[in-house]
Amino acid sequence: MSTAVTPDVPSQEDTMMIRAAVMTELGRIEVQERPQQEPGPHEALVRLRAVGVCGSDTAYFTVGRIGDWVVDGPIVLGHEAAGQVLAVGEEVTGVDVGDRVAIEPGTPCRQCGECMAGRYHLCPDLVFLATPPYDGALMETMVIDARNLHRIPASMSYEEGALVEPLSVGIWGCKRAGLEPGDDVLVTGAGPVGLLAGAVALAFGARSVAVTDPSEFRQGMARDLGLGVDDGTGGQDFDVLLECSGAKGVLAQGLRRLRPAGRAAMIGMPKEELVGLPLSQLNVNELSLSLVNRYNHTWPLAIALVASGRVKVDSLVTHHFSLAETADALTLGSRVTDSVKAVIHPDR
Amino acid sequence: MSTAVTPDVPSQEDTMMIRAAVMTELGRIEVQERPQQEPGPHEALVRLRAVGVCGSDTAYFTVGRIGDWVVDGPIVLGHEAAGQVLAVGEEVTGVDVGDRVAIEPGTPCRQCGECMAGRYHLCPDLVFLATPPYDGALMETMVIDARNLHRIPASMSYEEGALVEPLSVGIWGCKRAGLEPGDDVLVTGAGPVGLLAGAVALAFGARSVAVTDPSEFRQGMARDLGLGVDDGTGGQDFDVLLECSGAKGVLAQGLRRLRPAGRAAMIGMPKEELVGLPLSQLNVNELSLSLVNRYNHTWPLAIALVASGRVKVDSLVTHHFSLAETADALTLGSRVTDSVKAVIHPDR
Amino acid sequence: MSTAVTPDVPSQEDTMMIRAAVMTELGRIEVQERPQQEPGPHEALVRLRAVGVCGSDTAYFTVGRIGDWVVDGPIVLGHEAAGQVLAVGEEVTGVDVGDRVAIEPGTPCRQCGECMAGRYHLCPDLVFLATPPYDGALMETMVIDARNLHRIPASMSYEEGALVEPLSVGIWGCKRAGLEPGDDVLVTGAGPVGLLAGAVALAFGARSVAVTDPSEFRQGMARDLGLGVDDGTGGQDFDVLLECSGAKGVLAQGLRRLRPAGRAAMIGMPKEELVGLPLSQLNVNELSLSLVNRYNHTWPLAIALVASGRVKVDSLVTHHFSLAETADALTLGSRVTDSVKAVIHPDR
Amino acid sequence: MSTAVTPDVPSQEDTMMIRAAVMTELGRIEVQERPQQEPGPHEALVRLRAVGVCGSDTAYFTVGRIGDWVVDGPIVLGHEAAGQVLAVGEEVTGVDVGDRVAIEPGTPCRQCGECMAGRYHLCPDLVFLATPPYDGALMETMVIDARNLHRIPASMSYEEGALVEPLSVGIWGCKRAGLEPGDDVLVTGAGPVGLLAGAVALAFGARSVAVTDPSEFRQGMARDLGLGVDDGTGGQDFDVLLECSGAKGVLAQGLRRLRPAGRAAMIGMPKEELVGLPLSQLNVNELSLSLVNRYNHTWPLAIALVASGRVKVDSLVTHHFSLAETADALTLGSRVTDSVKAVIHPDR
Repeated sequence: MSTAVTPDVPSQEDTMMIRAAVMTELGRIEVQERPQQEPGPHEALVRLRAVGVCGSDTAYFTVGRIGDWVVDGPIVLGHEAAGQVLAVGEEVTGVDVGDRVAIEPGTPCRQCGECMAGRYHLCPDLVFLATPPYDGALMETMVIDARNLHRIPASMSYEEGALVEPLSVGIWGCKRAGLEPGDDVLVTGAGPVGLLAGAVALAFGARSVAVTDPSEFRQGMARDLGLGVDDGTGGQDFDVLLECSGAKGVLAQGLRRLRPAGRAAMIGMPKEELVGLPLSQLNVNELSLSLVNRYNHTWPLAIALVASGRVKVDSLVTHHFSLAETADALTLGSRVTDSVKAVIHPDR
Repeated sequence: MSTAVTPDVPSQEDTMMIRAAVMTELGRIEVQERPQQEPGPHEALVRLRAVGVCGSDTAYFTVGRIGDWVVDGPIVLGHEAAGQVLAVGEEVTGVDVGDRVAIEPGTPCRQCGECMAGRYHLCPDLVFLATPPYDGALMETMVIDARNLHRIPASMSYEEGALVEPLSVGIWGCKRAGLEPGDDVLVTGAGPVGLLAGAVALAFGARSVAVTDPSEFRQGMARDLGLGVDDGTGGQDFDVLLECSGAKGVLAQGLRRLRPAGRAAMIGMPKEELVGLPLSQLNVNELSLSLVNRYNHTWPLAIALVASGRVKVDSLVTHHFSLAETADALTLGSRVTDSVKAVIHPDR
Repeated sequence: MSTAVTPDVPSQEDTMMIRAAVMTELGRIEVQERPQQEPGPHEALVRLRAVGVCGSDTAYFTVGRIGDWVVDGPIVLGHEAAGQVLAVGEEVTGVDVGDRVAIEPGTPCRQCGECMAGRYHLCPDLVFLATPPYDGALMETMVIDARNLHRIPASMSYEEGALVEPLSVGIWGCKRAGLEPGDDVLVTGAGPVGLLAGAVALAFGARSVAVTDPSEFRQGMARDLGLGVDDGTGGQDFDVLLECSGAKGVLAQGLRRLRPAGRAAMIGMPKEELVGLPLSQLNVNELSLSLVNRYNHTWPLAIALVASGRVKVDSLVTHHFSLAETADALTLGSRVTDSVKAVIHPDR
Repeated sequence: MSTAVTPDVPSQEDTMMIRAAVMTELGRIEVQERPQQEPGPHEALVRLRAVGVCGSDTAYFTVGRIGDWVVDGPIVLGHEAAGQVLAVGEEVTGVDVGDRVAIEPGTPCRQCGECMAGRYHLCPDLVFLATPPYDGALMETMVIDARNLHRIPASMSYEEGALVEPLSVGIWGCKRAGLEPGDDVLVTGAGPVGLLAGAVALAFGARSVAVTDPSEFRQGMARDLGLGVDDGTGGQDFDVLLECSGAKGVLAQGLRRLRPAGRAAMIGMPKEELVGLPLSQLNVNELSLSLVNRYNHTWPLAIALVASGRVKVDSLVTHHFSLAETADALTLGSRVTDSVKAVIHPDR
């Protein structure tokens, strides 16, 4: 039961209805009305203000699956989200009504061995927004565990709050790579995650960060973030590889660019069933490769990096959409070349 | 034997003489002429352009000792140095004549167990500038192992190059503390090392950095570097303590400000023979304390942090002196309150 | 509600009564009857078979406090415990009725930041056996969260199961010290924890382990465990110090025995309010000191070390007592010199 | 110039001749006479007493190459060696004439960045026994940098001393895997390196170690070392994988056996140019994979593990040969099924 309601919320005498962008079948989004949910004791009701579009949203929309996760019914997409707290359950202590928040999309069980080992992101019972069968954030309001909400300061926009999610991917990728201050870093692929991972590497004290990407538009965005651009043909110049493209052969080629004792994190997901790596050849340099599955305890740092100006995320938002334009947002990348990140505003 | 000489160096037909600021007795500096040295096969001859004054220089000048290191004869002080390469030995590969360089003051043996373990700073045979019985850098030219020289870009001033040394102390202190991106950091003492350690913590991805110092002038410098100021009376708000004051009781008090699993590095050197720490009381939080002895492999990163603008060191230089004014520079702190870092220019 | 009961448990038609050794006042134990508790959904009912006596039990019994923990009412002592599962709650999955188990005495909240960071031992709401105001294990049966129960194989005795607790202290102390295979280790103090910490260091791949202790009896026990004995007068011969005595001056002296980059864990709790450490003198060696508060995720490993014979704990048990002899067990160390570990058998 | 000679060395009035097993062409060994070398200032002359046969020796003998290392002239094989010091150069301090020693086969430059980073095994100028173009140890005496010699106690045989080399591979593999005490470990492949890696994992505090190998003979040897045997068909039961077979598909299959946050080290060298790994599928478990190139600082620990009985290496030696039987030793594996490690005795 909720204990507080902001003045601008309509009275709940009758069940209030909200609009949600529902993927009803492959390639089709319908804006439907749904009853607004009420928060449980540890939950909060949040008015969504900005939801970023991720490649996984587009994959569910166009292909209907990512690996073993298969869309087999209507689903609401969107897991890069920020908004304002409308109501909180009676046990909630961390956030208050009216708070502006960035939303962490995964809710762990807090009971299992992974949770108790400090790895809640590997919790087998993790409930994650917009991952079948769970709905995501492309709706006017949503209810979520209040411990997933992280206050953002007045100086941060909701769009920046939504981009805390891909920024978290970059943070965790750098941590998984074992990035140390002083490392020279190569980022392969300058999509949103690659750009943010590179910016994070700089913010973690990398000596240098260079990005490879065939797109001149994205190379320019990399330079605007203070990152170098590499043409991919050089020698063993790097200590760390952050593979963010998922493209065939890029991981193997990036590993060849690493110095002895180099470390790599695979952040982009390859499409091949088997990725071929020249391990015998790489062995002389005694490399390490770490896989990356989302993130863990990253929101407070990500918010601080954005709020302090150490990582600038707003320039990545190239396109804006209303809730009714969700399908357009999900297919933006297939229509225009100069896009990086699309943001949907559920309140428009 | 040297293999190259820049055009503007006087011919070496006779032994060339250079000026050096020699501490001849406690509290007395004489500028004396000395024959210029010639670099050995792995060495370089450097024209000194900027030498920062460190508290250890002042201690040797006024007290004649630091712990077991005792000045027992004439000595040239100064170990925070930058300059230009005048000549290199025949085996030198890393730097060329004309290069502008920051000088790492410690030369390790490269043979012992510490060197081979990656800890050359703990080499028992380390030769360190301005540490008895070795002369320092307060002279017009000096000869040093060329592997101690690190090129600085044209955008960096020699003063900034000299400050790479105290910046290295900050870098190594953060590494010793086990600083992780996302940590909330408390720095006790806003002298040059405290300010730089705090700036490094931010550049390594600390979530926040707060400094304590009684001086309003230094509090202002902290704010200019983007650091917060803490009044020292709060609760357990920090993950990491960087103790940079060396003042009595500050380490113990700082440790009480740490959260569970907090980590501390003692960068400032206490004067007491025994430092009293409330270990039973601190035990419940399972803290860690690491001592810090100089630095290790820090120059390339320090130069990159300055060159990229991520750490601004130039504002710390509050006073400038010529070689003849060395004694004034060494006693500056006792005469003025609003000083942070004095730089001596041996070529003036 | 419990779902299963072993055949040999009396019918619960009326409330069953059990005997408990209650500390009713300083220095006084009364065996009292209490109603047997029933396990909640995640809990289990355990018949206690062996309970080791720890120095903290003796301190509560004789002094009434340890630091901020003060005995201010009747309390049951004992937290080193093993027994057999009599009944389990309906949600319990990890153990079954009849299982022989070692009991982890701390129950964390599983909700707070420390729990979610993988540090449940630092949970501010940790419920810990025999720590005021919580009762311990010196009774015939007890109810505890079933996740605190760890099966022991048939080859392990209940006494060995009880000693998993002090063995866990040794494991965690080694982990906190950053012990690496190949380290030379000094253990100061050959009480139960020192002996077990030394044995663990060997089992973790230490190159060598030497123990200091004035007692020839305990020196002999150290040798029986494969540990060396050091007279405390040597040079810098060790990489790691495990301070297990709590005695005045021993930590400082032990730190002086460490090589450059040495690491220490303070496992014994000093009695002084302020522990004086020669930090300036130790600084040249760049040591690290970690405090140790109990343990974390150690039971499965500790059981494996005992079950595989890699750590032999049974020889440490020098004395046995029945529940009625609890007061004698608690004061054993003050009466005899050749004791190491007393075990109380609540079923006798 | 050497400073000491043992009494039983023939006078060096004339150049003394020694016998060496020279691989003169593919598949052919000739025992030839060579002048005995004299140690330089930092070197020692060693009489070889036991040399183990490694798969790399067999590969050079039968195929003439391993990756980029190609045999293009006569070469002496053998790099698993132990012997007795006959003479030492004038600067040698660590070993004396008469010492029984295990020989570390790689001599680093001690000058480069890898050496100074504590990674001398990745030194680009490493001189390694029996790696073209450098000769190995299959001769009566050899000269080597004295810092490569590690004393073994009287209780250790020369055969055990020779096996310190493959034991070092196991040690370094465990370190590279990030093995932590308490891990459950899977070893794929029970050749000498797999068996020793498994034994090391136990000696480093693994909770359990299971080995897969199709050979019942080798399964038996695993059991004799206290290791479990796994049939390779189970679930995700392991924290760490030590891949020691080099066989096709085994690494990928082993990775599937790892729990979330599992870590793997590839110790066996795959023969395929590209190793196919199901990285998308493994990603959900956020695994890490580390390549392994020899070892680093392992001799002192390896000797201690053998000398203390914590790792038993002698049972692995299944066959013995004289120097004249070198070719037979190199091809043993192709003739018999129940072999693990062949040792050649150059003094026979």
